[in-house]
Amino acid sequence: MWNGIIEKYKDFYDIKDGEAVVTLNEGNTPLIPAENISNILGDIKLYLKYEGLNTTGSFKDRGMTMAVSKAVEAGSRAIICASTGNTSAAAAAYAAKAGIKCFVLIPNNKIALGKLAQAILYGAEIIPVDGNFDDALRIVREIAEEGKVTLVNSVNPYRLLGQRSGAYEVCDQLEGKVDYLSIPVGNAGNISAYWAGFKDYYAAKKIDKLPVMLGFQAEGAAPIVENRVFDEPETIATAIRIGNPASWDKAVAARDESKGLIDKVTDDEILQAQKLLASKEGVFVEPASAASLAGVIKLSKKGYFEKDKNVVCVLTGNGLKDPSVVSPEKELKVYSVKIEDIKAIIDKTLGSDQDG
Amino acid sequence: MWNGIIEKYKDFYDIKDGEAVVTLNEGNTPLIPAENISNILGDIKLYLKYEGLNTTGSFKDRGMTMAVSKAVEAGSRAIICASTGNTSAAAAAYAAKAGIKCFVLIPNNKIALGKLAQAILYGAEIIPVDGNFDDALRIVREIAEEGKVTLVNSVNPYRLLGQRSGAYEVCDQLEGKVDYLSIPVGNAGNISAYWAGFKDYYAAKKIDKLPVMLGFQAEGAAPIVENRVFDEPETIATAIRIGNPASWDKAVAARDESKGLIDKVTDDEILQAQKLLASKEGVFVEPASAASLAGVIKLSKKGYFEKDKNVVCVLTGNGLKDPSVVSPEKELKVYSVKIEDIKAIIDKTLGSDQDG
Repeated sequence: MWNGIIEKYKDFYDIKDGEAVVTLNEGNTPLIPAENISNILGDIKLYLKYEGLNTTGSFKDRGMTMAVSKAVEAGSRAIICASTGNTSAAAAAYAAKAGIKCFVLIPNNKIALGKLAQAILYGAEIIPVDGNFDDALRIVREIAEEGKVTLVNSVNPYRLLGQRSGAYEVCDQLEGKVDYLSIPVGNAGNISAYWAGFKDYYAAKKIDKLPVMLGFQAEGAAPIVENRVFDEPETIATAIRIGNPASWDKAVAARDESKGLIDKVTDDEILQAQKLLASKEGVFVEPASAASLAGVIKLSKKGYFEKDKNVVCVLTGNGLKDPSVVSPEKELKVYSVKIEDIKAIIDKTLGSDQDG
Repeated sequence: MWNGIIEKYKDFYDIKDGEAVVTLNEGNTPLIPAENISNILGDIKLYLKYEGLNTTGSFKDRGMTMAVSKAVEAGSRAIICASTGNTSAAAAAYAAKAGIKCFVLIPNNKIALGKLAQAILYGAEIIPVDGNFDDALRIVREIAEEGKVTLVNSVNPYRLLGQRSGAYEVCDQLEGKVDYLSIPVGNAGNISAYWAGFKDYYAAKKIDKLPVMLGFQAEGAAPIVENRVFDEPETIATAIRIGNPASWDKAVAARDESKGLIDKVTDDEILQAQKLLASKEGVFVEPASAASLAGVIKLSKKGYFEKDKNVVCVLTGNGLKDPSVVSPEKELKVYSVKIEDIKAIIDKTLGSDQDG
């Protein structure tokens, strides 16, 4: 029975017998072979690490199990974070499981409905502040310094330790044969954590080569790509709409040490990739997640990849977090319950080569 | 590497070498020990089989991998279903993966936004009909009889075969020690499939006792409980708002053979159970899923359970499918970015026993 990442990867996590472990059985997410998109691209073997199937719907659960376990072990009665969505959901859920309080500071604009609904139902105290994400992050850091409440944003070092498990799993699932790892870059913690995880596995001789790291930011929130802070980051991909990433230096190091790259993709490319994932592979992700595939498509068109290499796209969050981008409100014609009407639609759609 | 339920449980599925297998790596969902709710109830050991972590967000994926694989093997170019939501999402996703068309007939009322968004993005043709679920089901059955398109509603026998894997997994995860299995009942396919799955495992000597089956319908859609068709079924739990279940007889047999029961719970009990799952266990489910826990709570209060037995609640779908019930639109006060304001909120929430 799978009991979460801390138990599974205990050789890599310094948790002693009797220490608190707060888990929602996170991790163990599928690695889905994307045969249809691979055929379209023609050069690579694409795999989708579908992190939307963690318990709260995003990769954040991997870090939160570590951060909240350590907070409980240290005697904390509350955790706090600034969040545009996924972090708040994960923090609130793990606090609920642990029986401690959770405070979530949110920027007062453009929060995806599904994400806020989660934190509220999990029982967190939501505090909207009149500012952007970076303002909220500054406040929670200052408050946490007093020691009353534990900060669980990704500057909490346990978060990134937990997130390394994503890399361990990908290596286990592909038996070490990961050639490229493509990942969305927002606050830049996840690309840093994956790279550290791959290095852990390499040092432990569980893999005999390290993958090339490919990070992708949204064009309107591309501080690392353009090497400047974005004061007003803007993108439809809310989970990576961050102008001044906390793990900036680590992400640059991951890029350089792996001989990879961090590039940007447009909102349009992101939405195209999101649609391709759903309509060709049956996988529904939130827009930010699709940045990893959008980037791979961009590189594939340029002839970047060697033939037949294994490319893993990390799909960070579930599409159900943010269904608003799909616009299902469009007018659908309502048909009477006459069979003939329905048959006519089917025949028209399947085309004239269908003979009774 | 987990490659879906057909590969994992090939001893139980009659798929020959070379036959088509259309999979989204469904199954392998966590069984989460619900220590907090167990402590509140005081009598049982509660486990949550969180089926919301299947690839399209519900248990329907287990049956759809079988149904679509067999449709493709038979040369079908399209599948069709009537659906209030979860079935349409699963059908559309597996059709996308298989590269065939999917037609979804929906009743023209009260469809959860998240569910329809999925089917649309996966590329299905959505056909709203002027009638209820039972009208839609009657039409698709009639159309499928002509043989052009394959019906993938639960009357498709492969659906229930696939869904048996939920029972196999629960047995594997609890090493056979499942005393009670609690499950929401709508179209009644899933309770029938679980019971058949347990009997498969018993016949194969993988378990040495069968669990007691506990099914729960919503009060406003309780045809099996009241032994009458509901012409106008009504409940907030849209996924089980069904007045004339397709697998009625099988569900009654599962109940009677296992010496279990099928009872009803109110919408209020369902919403209370949904909130308890989120706020005590960090697990967010759609309302229909919470019917299984609502029923267990009802029975626990009556002293139904023997002490310390393992009770598994099947949580059929992800809460993100239907976040509207959470009402996060309530007015949240926006705070200025002054640290003092935020500290005051935290101190007030944590109470006076927190001494700086």
